[in-house]
Amino acid sequence: MPTTTWNRHHVLSLADFTTAEYDTVLQTAASFQEVLSRRTKKVPTLQGQVVANLFFESSTRTRSSFEIAAKRLSADTLNFAAATSSMTKGETILDTAKTYLAMGTDIMVIRHREAGVPNAIAAEMDRLGVRVSVLNAGDGQHEHPSQALLDLFTICTLIDPANPRLELLKGKKIAIVGDILHSRVARSNIWSLIASGAQVHLAAPPTLLPKLFSEFISEEIGDRSQESLAISPLSPSTQFPVPSSQSPLPLIPKGGPEFPSPQSPIPSPQLFLHWQLEPALQDADFVMTLRLQKERMTAHLLPSLREYHQLFGITRPKLQLCKPNVKVLHPGPVNRGVEISSDLMDDPEFSLIQSQVTSGVAVRMALLYLLGSGKA
Amino acid sequence: MPTTTWNRHHVLSLADFTTAEYDTVLQTAASFQEVLSRRTKKVPTLQGQVVANLFFESSTRTRSSFEIAAKRLSADTLNFAAATSSMTKGETILDTAKTYLAMGTDIMVIRHREAGVPNAIAAEMDRLGVRVSVLNAGDGQHEHPSQALLDLFTICTLIDPANPRLELLKGKKIAIVGDILHSRVARSNIWSLIASGAQVHLAAPPTLLPKLFSEFISEEIGDRSQESLAISPLSPSTQFPVPSSQSPLPLIPKGGPEFPSPQSPIPSPQLFLHWQLEPALQDADFVMTLRLQKERMTAHLLPSLREYHQLFGITRPKLQLCKPNVKVLHPGPVNRGVEISSDLMDDPEFSLIQSQVTSGVAVRMALLYLLGSGKA
Amino acid sequence: MPTTTWNRHHVLSLADFTTAEYDTVLQTAASFQEVLSRRTKKVPTLQGQVVANLFFESSTRTRSSFEIAAKRLSADTLNFAAATSSMTKGETILDTAKTYLAMGTDIMVIRHREAGVPNAIAAEMDRLGVRVSVLNAGDGQHEHPSQALLDLFTICTLIDPANPRLELLKGKKIAIVGDILHSRVARSNIWSLIASGAQVHLAAPPTLLPKLFSEFISEEIGDRSQESLAISPLSPSTQFPVPSSQSPLPLIPKGGPEFPSPQSPIPSPQLFLHWQLEPALQDADFVMTLRLQKERMTAHLLPSLREYHQLFGITRPKLQLCKPNVKVLHPGPVNRGVEISSDLMDDPEFSLIQSQVTSGVAVRMALLYLLGSGKA
Repeated sequence: MPTTTWNRHHVLSLADFTTAEYDTVLQTAASFQEVLSRRTKKVPTLQGQVVANLFFESSTRTRSSFEIAAKRLSADTLNFAAATSSMTKGETILDTAKTYLAMGTDIMVIRHREAGVPNAIAAEMDRLGVRVSVLNAGDGQHEHPSQALLDLFTICTLIDPANPRLELLKGKKIAIVGDILHSRVARSNIWSLIASGAQVHLAAPPTLLPKLFSEFISEEIGDRSQESLAISPLSPSTQFPVPSSQSPLPLIPKGGPEFPSPQSPIPSPQLFLHWQLEPALQDADFVMTLRLQKERMTAHLLPSLREYHQLFGITRPKLQLCKPNVKVLHPGPVNRGVEISSDLMDDPEFSLIQSQVTSGVAVRMALLYLLGSGKA
Repeated sequence: MPTTTWNRHHVLSLADFTTAEYDTVLQTAASFQEVLSRRTKKVPTLQGQVVANLFFESSTRTRSSFEIAAKRLSADTLNFAAATSSMTKGETILDTAKTYLAMGTDIMVIRHREAGVPNAIAAEMDRLGVRVSVLNAGDGQHEHPSQALLDLFTICTLIDPANPRLELLKGKKIAIVGDILHSRVARSNIWSLIASGAQVHLAAPPTLLPKLFSEFISEEIGDRSQESLAISPLSPSTQFPVPSSQSPLPLIPKGGPEFPSPQSPIPSPQLFLHWQLEPALQDADFVMTLRLQKERMTAHLLPSLREYHQLFGITRPKLQLCKPNVKVLHPGPVNRGVEISSDLMDDPEFSLIQSQVTSGVAVRMALLYLLGSGKA
Repeated sequence: MPTTTWNRHHVLSLADFTTAEYDTVLQTAASFQEVLSRRTKKVPTLQGQVVANLFFESSTRTRSSFEIAAKRLSADTLNFAAATSSMTKGETILDTAKTYLAMGTDIMVIRHREAGVPNAIAAEMDRLGVRVSVLNAGDGQHEHPSQALLDLFTICTLIDPANPRLELLKGKKIAIVGDILHSRVARSNIWSLIASGAQVHLAAPPTLLPKLFSEFISEEIGDRSQESLAISPLSPSTQFPVPSSQSPLPLIPKGGPEFPSPQSPIPSPQLFLHWQLEPALQDADFVMTLRLQKERMTAHLLPSLREYHQLFGITRPKLQLCKPNVKVLHPGPVNRGVEISSDLMDDPEFSLIQSQVTSGVAVRMALLYLLGSGKA
């Protein structure tokens, strides 16, 4: 393991991650990636520790990834299935978390459909003065930090396998395509990509871009809708109102965080919004596609899957606009033929989707290791 | 581990527990409590053994507690989830148990909504002459021995952390408040508390006190309902008809066990029933609250949660009646503001609720150890 | 472990199993059976490997058996529960399998209600050039190889515990009774029993025998229905159209595989069909009963369970027709009093049902060992 000064007790959001922290995660994950290629893929690092997967919102994929990561570190794992839980008996979420704390849990991996739940649990643990760590495995439309970190690791190890680090993305153009508005994956990725110095281009139909900003566009600058609108880089204090650790159960306001208005431009813009796919793809180094929830259509935010695919689905011809060695990412599970054409998804020349899953185990081992190694 | 002569093969009920057995569990749990404070919280005691959690009635909390206890002892665990089981395919419960036996299970931890199921399975295992142990994790309205033992351990370690033992409770006044009638937790606790020499005061609305006794009161001694009625200590043979290990699937009669009538008074009474909370709380050392099933209201056994809380909910002002250093217990999950006020629940000066959960792991390790150590 | 030349990468079907392969499984299972009788029932063979139980169709019994087998070999296990999986999110089965591959799964144990799914996944893994193994844990009405292998192991160890091998069944008469038409267990057993040189007699009501053959009988040779009809031994190419590993998701044709017509008799017939139970039982050495799905009745394939039991249920009196030391098997879970009388099921003189479950763990350890030992 690389020597490092990691002082973070929880991983709830990437909003305040420092470059040193990103690099520590990347380097630690790289060393675990090496472990995973060995004959015996296990290390005794977290032996005797308990990792509880508290998935109030079910997810086989992410839960399995965390479970396998924990087992590779020799931790014991507990799975909490919301469906059969005492939640149905009226217990509060904080009480459930405190019960797992009292049972001796060392790290809680928490997924919940409400934004801010992991923050609230972490705040309560800190208030109690206990050493348990909380790892956000996706909370509502807020953040999904381990997903963004594995995306980052996937890209950086592609560029420099021997030494993945944040600065490798400086100046790269990354397109994020799809349901930005409702995506915790996009929100976490925006933090890490902005921090890396990349140029981040968000492309989506107006109904799937952050609400207040798109309203602004439609009312104020209607006919500029064809253009790319450069906006300021996000700053933690004004853009994504991360719930304070004092408040009991803070939520992201409905409709997503409020984007800054162009009236207050900031120098060195790195974040761009597009109502069309093409300007985002133009000369892009990486294309991150987002999963489309089919429920969006019943909410009349989308015409049809076919039309969505035609306009925003990633296909081989559309990739012609990008850099020649462009790569495509997707957090999974993929709706084949919707966010991305089926043949492209299976083409290892372009698709990083399988690498992302493999990176996921290494990155989650790294996070569990960094959070847990000080405890045992 | 303390040297001990533990000869019990199953833990089904506390009705016939001896003082020596209680003390063995308490001392063994104390030594595991010490293990849990170490850097590496695992011992290899049950390595290679299989603990199967057969939860025909789902319970995340108790199942997780047993699972973590088994893993701390290095046992392998199997979880049986009733919902997805072959039970839906028409197999009998005994056949399911025999299947897990044939797979090599060493200890079966069984929860079922019918009273007597663990007894019936244990009887079948004994009939087959096999060495598998059965641990009752809650059966209908019969018993929940590990819960009562962890309550006992919580209280005893509070009084004398270095040497928890049954006699510490001698002469203490313990109030058990709530849905006594339907509570397996109350039934198991009554056995252990009576055995300890404590004075046990049960307080509940008449509809939630054991049926036949309350009927007797209303008909025969109606106007004494305001008083505390001392009744005889329970004796295993007459009070709680524990299913004999010969009968196939014996059940507690509907309406709960029959209490002895005051016509046959017995000397040295330790058990008292109250239709009001106050006489039970008066000078109490410990207050055990019970979970209120909201279904009781639809069955017209309760007026409203608000009225229940007003009359029987434990609050800071009501605790003034108790001894100054009174402590409150609850088996969880708690309906905040119903059985106990929310602020009191979170007040470590009064609430032992978190300690109970922690004690649960140590006590279950002790039980698994005592049942399993002779096998491997 | 016996030295062996095992070259099989997946276990999908017994159709092309060689005698050497059967014997390797039997001998390996025998050595694990010996491990299971030791004080410590674990071996470190698969330490660091991941066995993923991908049960798209739920099964507590088979999943637990594989899970315990994997844990006895010190593998880490992942359980995939179809109900809470991303399958509901629209991901394809192959994508799910590839996700588990990318997470580092070494062996996938797959159950699915559609025939051919494990084959399709194995074909995809081979196409990708990866070393993951696929083990069919039951696919539709196609095959259930580990069940047939444990049946074989149960019978062979009964005959010669020290040296179980395929040839022990040569010339034995085995009756398979019940819903042959819809049974993957019967299909896999037919392959192994034919390979052993046994005489296999299938008995069922005409509606539960393979469709095309029974239609042929009813039309062409109606009044011969009382007789036993010798048909040719099954040959892999014509009888059971095993899905080729090239085709994407091949299925057994609806109504089951087509049996050869008696017009094309083949010498040395080993397979016999009966519309009545008695000729199948006559002098039988072993009787394999099959589970009856109660749904068959709503499909009007059966009159009533009572009538089925009267005609095809195995009872003590009916066993008089068999060899004196006849034994009865059932894959479980049993509908007591339907496929087999309740008292017979519990009689260790006749019933091998518990032995089958125990054999299941040893045989599954053997399969996981044979598939996994070359990987780590």
